[in-house]
This record gives sequence, C-alpha cells and structure tokens, in this order.
Amino acid sequence: MGYNEQERAFIEWYPRGYGVGFKVKRRLFETQTEYQRLEIYETEGFGKLLVLDGTVQLVEIGEESYHEVLVHPVMLAHPNPKRVLVIGGGDGGTLREVLRHDTVEKAIMVEIDEGVVEASYLYLDVAKDLLDRLIKKEEPRAELIIGDGVKYLRETGERFDVIIVDSTDPVGPAKLLFSEEFYRDAYEKLNDEGLYITQAGSVYLFTNELLDAYKAMKKVFDRVYYFSFPVIGYASPWSFLIGVKGDVDFTRIDLERAKKLDLYYYDPERHETLFQMPRYVRKLLEGQ
Amino acid sequence: MGYNEQERAFIEWYPRGYGVGFKVKRRLFETQTEYQRLEIYETEGFGKLLVLDGTVQLVEIGEESYHEVLVHPVMLAHPNPKRVLVIGGGDGGTLREVLRHDTVEKAIMVEIDEGVVEASYLYLDVAKDLLDRLIKKEEPRAELIIGDGVKYLRETGERFDVIIVDSTDPVGPAKLLFSEEFYRDAYEKLNDEGLYITQAGSVYLFTNELLDAYKAMKKVFDRVYYFSFPVIGYASPWSFLIGVKGDVDFTRIDLERAKKLDLYYYDPERHETLFQMPRYVRKLLEGQ
Repeated sequence: MGYNEQERAFIEWYPRGYGVGFKVKRRLFETQTEYQRLEIYETEGFGKLLVLDGTVQLVEIGEESYHEVLVHPVMLAHPNPKRVLVIGGGDGGTLREVLRHDTVEKAIMVEIDEGVVEASYLYLDVAKDLLDRLIKKEEPRAELIIGDGVKYLRETGERFDVIIVDSTDPVGPAKLLFSEEFYRDAYEKLNDEGLYITQAGSVYLFTNELLDAYKAMKKVFDRVYYFSFPVIGYASPWSFLIGVKGDVDFTRIDLERAKKLDLYYYDPERHETLFQMPRYVRKLLEGQ
Repeated sequence: MGYNEQERAFIEWYPRGYGVGFKVKRRLFETQTEYQRLEIYETEGFGKLLVLDGTVQLVEIGEESYHEVLVHPVMLAHPNPKRVLVIGGGDGGTLREVLRHDTVEKAIMVEIDEGVVEASYLYLDVAKDLLDRLIKKEEPRAELIIGDGVKYLRETGERFDVIIVDSTDPVGPAKLLFSEEFYRDAYEKLNDEGLYITQAGSVYLFTNELLDAYKAMKKVFDRVYYFSFPVIGYASPWSFLIGVKGDVDFTRIDLERAKKLDLYYYDPERHETLFQMPRYVRKLLEGQ
C-alpha cells in the first residue's frame, strides 16, 4: 500500500489484491493529523492526489466524477432543496457542488478532521476559494463545523431537505456512518420530504459492505435506491445508496434545473442509466 | 509496465499514468508467440491472468463481465441470430457465450494467433472444453480458423447475422480492425439485418480512439450505438460500439430469450442502463 519506488507511483490495494495506481512526480506534503495520515502527491496525468490512511480520496483531474454524482442526482430529485447537510467532504468539492443550486439557503458541512480542510485549502485546486470563505466565515449560504458528524446529527435541532455523507470507506473510522443507528438519526433530522445519500464503496470489491448498508437503510427509510458510477481514482464502479423520507421519487429529476448546471460526468438527460448495476449485485440487493 | 517485484504484482499502465494491477503469486507461463509476448500469472484473488504484450486480456474470476456484455446485448437485440462471426477472442470466452444461444447454427472464430488459443487451452479455465473441441474439429456448431481477420472478412463468401470483434486495443496491432475500410467489409458481409459489435477501449483513457472509431463507423453503418460497462481487470468503464445494418433496434432486446441465459453481469431487464456514459463523452460522440 502506498508509494512504490520502482514504479514511481502511488498504488492503492483493495481486497483480493486489486490495485489502482497513479504515476507520481513527487510527494508534496505529508502529515499525521489528529485522526489520520494525510498525503498529497503530484501525479503525472491527473493533477494532485489526496490520500488518507493510504486510500485515494481524490485526484484533481476527475474529482467531479465523484462530486457530481454524489450531489446532483439527489438535489435534482428533491423538489426544493433549501437546507443541506454535508457530513465529511473536507476537501470542499461536495459543498461546492451543493452551492451551485440556487434553491439552497443554508448548507452545513461537518468535517471531523480540520487537517483535511487545511491541507485541501493549501494544496488542492478543488474548492480553494470556498474553503477560504468558510474558514473566514464569509460564505453567506454555508457554514463549516469541525466536529463529529455522528454526534452532530444526534444532537442538532436543525432539519434538512438533503443529507449527504461524503466519508471514507465503510471499513475504517467511518464505520459508524454506515450503522442503523446513524441512519435513524438522519431520518429523524430530515424534513417530511427528504433525501439521504451516501457513497457505499466499490461494487465489485466491497459488495458485502454495500449489502449491509442497504439492509440497514431499508429498515429505516421509506424507500432505498442504489446506483453506480465510474469514479476516476477509485476501483470503479462505485456504489451510492439513497434513502428517501416521504414522497420523493428518486427515479425522476428536474431537467429544467439540471440544464443550468451544464454537468461534465453525471448526465441528467439519461438519469435512468445511473442505475447500471451488474445483474448479480442487483439480485443480491433485491434479495435483502 | 508488467511485473513489479516490490509489490509482487502485475500492473498495467495506461495513458496519463493510470494503473490497474493484480497481486500475483507467480508467473505460470511466458512465451513469444508468432505475433506477441504472452504471459500467464496466478493472481491472489482473481484466478489466472492472461497478458498480451503487457496488456491485461482477462482474469478468470470476472472475465464474464467482458464476455457477457460483448455477446448477449447484440445477440438478444437481433431477432434471429443464426450465423455469427467472432474475430479475435482466442481465449474462447466470446465463442462460449455465443454458443449459449440456441438460434446459432454456425459460428466461425478467426483468431490470428494460434499461440493464444493453445495457451488458453492449456492454462485457463475460460473455455477449455470448447477450445479442445474446436482444435479437434468436434464442435458441430462452430469452427476455428487460424488466420488474419481483416483478410478473412475481405475474402469470405459467407454472410453473418452478427459480427463480434474481440480484439486487443485500437492502439496496437489491432488498429486495422478499427478502420473505415474494415467496417465496410463487415457491413458488406452482414445479412440484410445485421449487427456488428466491437470493444472500443477505456472511456476515460482512450476517449479519442473511441471517437475516431465511432466517426468511422457512422460513415458505414445505418446506425451506430455506444455503451459502457465496468469490466473487471480493465480501466473501467470500458466502451463498446455497435453498428447496425437494416432494421434492427439495439435499444430493445428479446427478454424471453434473455431469461434462459441467467446472466451474471449484463442485466437484460435493465437494458437501458447499459447506455451509461459520462455526459461529456456522450456530447463528444453526438457531436461527431
């Protein structure tokens, strides 16, 4: 796991010995934050690479392949998303996409690790200006809270139209974000019409974790949807789970609002193709 | 490119320094065939790995993710595919899937490199029995021809309902299989209602090659479709191009025939999801 001298590359090894790697020119930065080991590399062909505890978080060139599909499908399926909560997402990419929606009046981002926000602000071309405004408390529609998302969601008096969990994988410190208890807190803090979305790992390599999360979400939400998308830098396809509260139909989105966004990866006019899933995985999910 | 001692892994490096790798236990076999360097590795988690000139052809565990989507969508979209031509596909996986269709009366496989067929027969659990029968000329519905697919297609007097090109990537020796001239030969040798399909490389990393092939196919076929699918072992998503002659609609398939196949990766009941494509790539293709 990590930097390979022979290849001059950073390689992430997934279960069953499957690797995804990037040739790198140099390591720009490394530190041990309060919560995790953080590294930033300059890659040959994908801009800068952010690594947490040895796992790829994003590459600058292609990060939208993740942030667009995490944010816009739920934002466009919700009829009028005014209040949005982002848990995790310290690089700022998710909040950046959320704020592209004019409907948003207030977005709160709860990131546990201040070190991720600082390093992203200093080194990454993802959401530099936004992070700067958040740190200085100069962003009128958004607020950054450094804190534990699990605790925040349990205790907050706020209510949200959309909750987005942009965490590390369900196998490490973010495990609690994939628990039934956490889903119950999320459900409670959604407005009567609300959408919850979380990334849920590699379809092929974290199939069991995907099934477990789906099963737990089914116990809590009124309906649960799943989709997959090829995220650059991850062992694609990557899976996403959506929990619905109330009367929102995730299979339909607002194409008028979508047009204004001019997206690069997610294709609102072909929303139905988002639900691509290997047949055996669909069967496994539907058997839960 | 290739075996990495430090990682005990085989890693394929794509353009822009993007890598896909497998941890391996050992190299089982290597040879220089008449056409290419052939290697077979035993991986840790995906069975055996076939490599040609340094590029991953397949891993045993997951090979169906490629062979199913290459074969079944066109076979199920064609109303009655009796005569099928496979160009390349020396491992036998594509022909194996073709022969699962009862409609098939005659399938011909033209593979240029006998060394691939032999090594696949000896070392891979992909289509061992089928290759054995082909070599012994004991397969009643199929015939193996060792020869140049370009030359074969130009000269043959046979006509086909479906032509499947299962070649290496459009950047090496298989370049001719992506030329307008070759597409014209294919079109001519299709029956009045016919379908042609070819793999067309990594969506994200061979986008230009995909566009070039699409453009050339548009000049020749009555209609051209594209789709993408996550193939295990390749830099997914992988792209596929379909050329239509006559009155066949590739957006609709025969669900009755599909049910009998009980597929693992390709999901006939969700055929529309096959057309997942990053929006910017769809826009590029539609601009051709």
